[in-house]
Amino acid sequence: MRLLANSSSPFKSATARRREREAKRQAVLLAAVRMFNERGFHATSLDDVATSLGITKPTVYHYLGNKDQILLECVTFGLEQLLEAVEESRAASGTGLERLRVFLRRYAEINMGDFGRCVIRTGDEALSPESARSFRALKKRIDQAMRDLIAEGMEDGSITQGDPWIAAFTLAGALNWPARWYDPRGTRRPAEVAAEMVDFLTRGLAPRA
Amino acid sequence: MRLLANSSSPFKSATARRREREAKRQAVLLAAVRMFNERGFHATSLDDVATSLGITKPTVYHYLGNKDQILLECVTFGLEQLLEAVEESRAASGTGLERLRVFLRRYAEINMGDFGRCVIRTGDEALSPESARSFRALKKRIDQAMRDLIAEGMEDGSITQGDPWIAAFTLAGALNWPARWYDPRGTRRPAEVAAEMVDFLTRGLAPRA
Repeated sequence: MRLLANSSSPFKSATARRREREAKRQAVLLAAVRMFNERGFHATSLDDVATSLGITKPTVYHYLGNKDQILLECVTFGLEQLLEAVEESRAASGTGLERLRVFLRRYAEINMGDFGRCVIRTGDEALSPESARSFRALKKRIDQAMRDLIAEGMEDGSITQGDPWIAAFTLAGALNWPARWYDPRGTRRPAEVAAEMVDFLTRGLAPRA
Repeated sequence: MRLLANSSSPFKSATARRREREAKRQAVLLAAVRMFNERGFHATSLDDVATSLGITKPTVYHYLGNKDQILLECVTFGLEQLLEAVEESRAASGTGLERLRVFLRRYAEINMGDFGRCVIRTGDEALSPESARSFRALKKRIDQAMRDLIAEGMEDGSITQGDPWIAAFTLAGALNWPARWYDPRGTRRPAEVAAEMVDFLTRGLAPRA
């Protein structure tokens, strides 16, 4: 009898097992977030999520925990994407306005994706008090980062003077809204829509001379 | 024995009874909308609404019907305020941009009020399919009116050329968002915040020469 070479062992390596587990976890998370977005959190049961993947509800629990934990995981994933966008814009060169525009375009794009949509569509009241606290804390970091970028632009003169709080809420509102109206089955890509919205917010409604 | 004058009759006139009924109905509606906004629709029971007014749940039913009917009533009331704002802006004089600005300021202000907040915070999935259809139909009228005002401004040159759909979604998003962040207990009045937001959207982020 010939021994099998290590690479063709029928037993998976620890790394492969970890990778496989992570891939399964991501698949369950994606199925859950899409169902939350489509049907609403309350109207979604973990049974439906399980059925859509051809697995059982205990398997969903095994990978992600209960419904509250899954929702927290979904919004945390979305908020982490937004925090990465903050980091990218901080590393970018240019005026405050230029760096803010980099951030805003990514921000809008993320909100058109599965996890960003979930961040916007989730009200605090859907989460347990503890999860809601964690959700609010992450959102505060994003809001603060946006205000900081605006304040930097106001300081270097690339952004018109005004109240950074009101400016940040105005921009965030405009660019959160695609989570409600953007249709991924349409012809326009998220990056293109995001760029047009940011141009619009930069130049304003009134024509420039 | 002297006959009582008609005006001091202990029996209420039909008009007074109607008016009283309407005042009670409004009070129940306001208590309900505030609770929906504060706790979320799902977390609010009609028992809580009844208790907050010192009445019973059957009395709430008597005035407004079941929870779905009450929510539909709340959002319809908010959307009617927005439709009035459309009419006002249509009757206003000035360029397309000027009339749009009149509309946008009222639009933002309404969204900081009890019923406008409820319009924004209510997802279709919270309503029965029939109520959701009615909700969507009214929202479409508002969206259409905003796009019409924008298109008029683009035609008369008072608004920069662009896609009226994207412009309308951008404006609506910015001015819907106060339903989530505006705190009526703060020091700034809705009209003042609305005016600053609309100025910001009109002039844009980049300074004007």
